[in-house]
Amino acid sequence: MSGTTGFGIEHLPYGVFSVAGGLRRVGVRLADGVLDLAELTDRPEMAASSLNPLLALGPQVWRELREQVVALAESGAPTLPLADVVLHLPVEVADYVDFYASEHHATRVGEVFRPDAPALPRAWKHLPIGYHGRAGTVVVSGTPVVRPSGVRGPGDVGPSQRLDLEAELGYVVGVPSPQGTPVAAESFADHVFGVVGLNDWSARDLQAFETVPLGPFLGKSFATSVSAWVTPLAALDAAWCDLPSQDPRPADHLAPDGARGLDLTVEVEVAGQVVATAPHASTYWGPAQMLAHLTSNGASLRVGDLFASGTISGPGDDERGCLLELTWGGRDPWTGADGRERTWLEDGDEVVLRYTAPSTSGGTITLGEVRGEVLPAR
Amino acid sequence: MSGTTGFGIEHLPYGVFSVAGGLRRVGVRLADGVLDLAELTDRPEMAASSLNPLLALGPQVWRELREQVVALAESGAPTLPLADVVLHLPVEVADYVDFYASEHHATRVGEVFRPDAPALPRAWKHLPIGYHGRAGTVVVSGTPVVRPSGVRGPGDVGPSQRLDLEAELGYVVGVPSPQGTPVAAESFADHVFGVVGLNDWSARDLQAFETVPLGPFLGKSFATSVSAWVTPLAALDAAWCDLPSQDPRPADHLAPDGARGLDLTVEVEVAGQVVATAPHASTYWGPAQMLAHLTSNGASLRVGDLFASGTISGPGDDERGCLLELTWGGRDPWTGADGRERTWLEDGDEVVLRYTAPSTSGGTITLGEVRGEVLPAR
Repeated sequence: MSGTTGFGIEHLPYGVFSVAGGLRRVGVRLADGVLDLAELTDRPEMAASSLNPLLALGPQVWRELREQVVALAESGAPTLPLADVVLHLPVEVADYVDFYASEHHATRVGEVFRPDAPALPRAWKHLPIGYHGRAGTVVVSGTPVVRPSGVRGPGDVGPSQRLDLEAELGYVVGVPSPQGTPVAAESFADHVFGVVGLNDWSARDLQAFETVPLGPFLGKSFATSVSAWVTPLAALDAAWCDLPSQDPRPADHLAPDGARGLDLTVEVEVAGQVVATAPHASTYWGPAQMLAHLTSNGASLRVGDLFASGTISGPGDDERGCLLELTWGGRDPWTGADGRERTWLEDGDEVVLRYTAPSTSGGTITLGEVRGEVLPAR
Repeated sequence: MSGTTGFGIEHLPYGVFSVAGGLRRVGVRLADGVLDLAELTDRPEMAASSLNPLLALGPQVWRELREQVVALAESGAPTLPLADVVLHLPVEVADYVDFYASEHHATRVGEVFRPDAPALPRAWKHLPIGYHGRAGTVVVSGTPVVRPSGVRGPGDVGPSQRLDLEAELGYVVGVPSPQGTPVAAESFADHVFGVVGLNDWSARDLQAFETVPLGPFLGKSFATSVSAWVTPLAALDAAWCDLPSQDPRPADHLAPDGARGLDLTVEVEVAGQVVATAPHASTYWGPAQMLAHLTSNGASLRVGDLFASGTISGPGDDERGCLLELTWGGRDPWTGADGRERTWLEDGDEVVLRYTAPSTSGGTITLGEVRGEVLPAR
């Protein structure tokens, strides 16, 4: 229960688990155990196969539930050993949107993909650019990912040869909003329940060929991995920070008086080798701005909507949250744990994303990790 | 019940309805009435608030159910008057993908949006280009659409001034597929249940500014309207036709031996004026190719997935299925029913899409119309 595991009493993230093939239910991680909320509370929303019924309850009940869970943890309520449970996708994802909020990432990608054009697209500093991804292929940490095949160029079909990861943070929406009515940036905490770690697996060759003019499609839609644990915003009170100043000043509905974000750090490990440690505090657009933008045209929110930061990258060479940046499009190799020169993901590679953030007690919490092994193309 | 209404016994599309605030249930349209399948059959899937439980049953049961419904219609089973029922969104949409399959449309859009570049993007003839749209803002015909606001350019925020429609056909997926396993083009009818009319409302100014490099987002995500009636593939046996020949030959998984499509016609009416009548038979990519492409990277299908054709446009000047083409980006006005010169959609405009197709009895069926009125920005 101490800060050493990152899952102490100041954290208490939510997930969905089962034991020995039994029904799925809601649990809370505490140290190396799981509090079974279907057993320990009278709330019917805890006997559910996803967090969605809990998400729909809204911030007042989220607060009450957290008080209840803290009390359970403090009173030494029994936990199930983590090793005895199976963890499932925590959220039934409604719509999934992926943003592109890191200036360091977007600049490097522009330089690699479009060397003859300005690195940042024209609209990039005027609004948080994003797109819809495939909600149906979001999988829980631990799920293997089959290498995708597809059209890599004219007459060139086969398995992706430029398979990549993207280390991101995902924001989980609980409270819906009606179609036709934008959600203000200030209302962020009225709608967003918490965060997950997220790996936006990317097949760069498929993506590069298909992407003009409608954006990424099959290069991304084969799989997106999220952590099994959803960290509630309540556990991240100490993690909020000012983001870098924004110039030009964004439009009024995008919170023009400065962006706030989460001072999280993500460590990227590929096949046993840490290849990057990236600071989310260096991102340009904050999550409340993303939410306000996403709904500014009247698009509604649903319970279980998920929106993600885009690749988390900082200014440093060891702060690049994807292999596209790390290898400069495959040009510059890195050295694997086994001493070999490496560029893109290989079959059998396991990718692990580990997230840490300041905790309210002055220590550190560890978000749920995001783990996935690359399987050979079929 | 005759072919004059387009909803005779050779059609029998499915929808979801309620009466006087009662529970939603599955119905079948017959002439100007509705067969209440929750009442008239013993199938529990008919007492549902969407068609999804029916969709999940698969093609063998779809066939049996259709035989049962035909028998009901032939036996003169009682219908509820259409005027007495409320029609609802027929499908709980899982993932929504929009393609860009008409060469006539894509060519004109390229010429308008990117006059200095080749009209067709590099990959266009090598794969059916598409992107994910927002499933949560798909609404049923008759739902008003609030004019979206957003960032139209640097420092330029406000209601869209270039609001458009796109006349499309949507394909409704019933049978899911596992992640990691592509669905063959030949398996189209094992997964797809039927079709809906679809209006992909588009704010061209928001779209133009945001679209590089990740594609359309807020310019499309505020609303997509679909018909209340889903026409099963079984009613479209006579509508299949060869599409124009494809050169270069597509990759093997994209059915290289010729594309097949539906010989549907869509009529586009804006504020009482028919502005286009477009032939779907002139599209380049067929729906089985779209499905095969969509899953070729291993992306799974879910019950209720929806994928759409993109704007249906033919070669003729009066066959352009969106105002972007019809007005050449706002340059060329058209004359409204009231005699005024018009370009983009105005507040109060009602847009109606009407679809016809050859029926199995040699006549014509009329798909469910797609209707929506533009409300002023909020």
